[in-house]
Amino acid sequence: MIRLLGIDPGLRFTGWGVIDVDGNRLCHVADGVIATDGDASVPERLRTLHDALIDLIDQRKPVEAAVEETYVNRNGASTLKLGYARGIALLVPAISGLPVSEYGAMAVKRAVVGTGAATKEQVEMMVRRLLPGATIRRADASDALAVAICHAHHRASAQRVAGGTRMA
Amino acid sequence: MIRLLGIDPGLRFTGWGVIDVDGNRLCHVADGVIATDGDASVPERLRTLHDALIDLIDQRKPVEAAVEETYVNRNGASTLKLGYARGIALLVPAISGLPVSEYGAMAVKRAVVGTGAATKEQVEMMVRRLLPGATIRRADASDALAVAICHAHHRASAQRVAGGTRMA
Repeated sequence: MIRLLGIDPGLRFTGWGVIDVDGNRLCHVADGVIATDGDASVPERLRTLHDALIDLIDQRKPVEAAVEETYVNRNGASTLKLGYARGIALLVPAISGLPVSEYGAMAVKRAVVGTGAATKEQVEMMVRRLLPGATIRRADASDALAVAICHAHHRASAQRVAGGTRMA
Repeated sequence: MIRLLGIDPGLRFTGWGVIDVDGNRLCHVADGVIATDGDASVPERLRTLHDALIDLIDQRKPVEAAVEETYVNRNGASTLKLGYARGIALLVPAISGLPVSEYGAMAVKRAVVGTGAATKEQVEMMVRRLLPGATIRRADASDALAVAICHAHHRASAQRVAGGTRMA
């Protein structure tokens, strides 16, 4: 059995989800959202995100992490802010010694729903079906569990790609 | 006397510069560039940057940090990568307890050369003039010293803006 952490990063809300994988069986462990104070400075918000992810890894002890590679079609300032949050989401598992994989939104949807054209609602419905007991107070947590499920599906082939961290 | 750290972040090369400020007097302490391995995974590269900045702050003991807010006019993927590096550059001083300020390129040029339209070469020439002894093996280090100089000029007024971290 192996424990995986999925992260859907954002400066305002970062979704996270922890699942256990035993062969083809998936089991929900915990999920939630890390919120940062929109009135705080960016460095303070990044510290909040960093500290919360450190605590999460300490408490739940996942051994691998997967981060959603959000599709970017907004302006430069928004993309930069998303970059800050993704940077922290990629950094913290790495400094904790976890291998980190990245998956694009299409790959996540394909892994969870079976089609890259799935809607947010379809993803959440399938996540709830695959992981009974999931809390999912916000869609960010559903997306984080979905990227963890995606990683569970891909990790066997991922292990065949020596040194590669980007599978899709 | 107060010691300042300037950072010009980038995923490939992050420039840094440390200066001492005593009233109107500036004194060069050290400068350099943190390079990450282009063949390594992004999480590994962010870890390299994180660890190097932690070591730098431990060794040089600056008490405030300033980060250059690079102008963004490239594609989304490049902006996202720059965001990762800036996220780490904003995070590490914050987790080390340093106040972090951000300055746009125009503000840095105005503070160092006197005009926001200054060229890279003019900035480097003025940085060398203002800080005899600066090493500056790459332009990134010059830009980092320039943002430290900019912060030295702005910090008096910055302290009047309660809670604000973005001055320009």
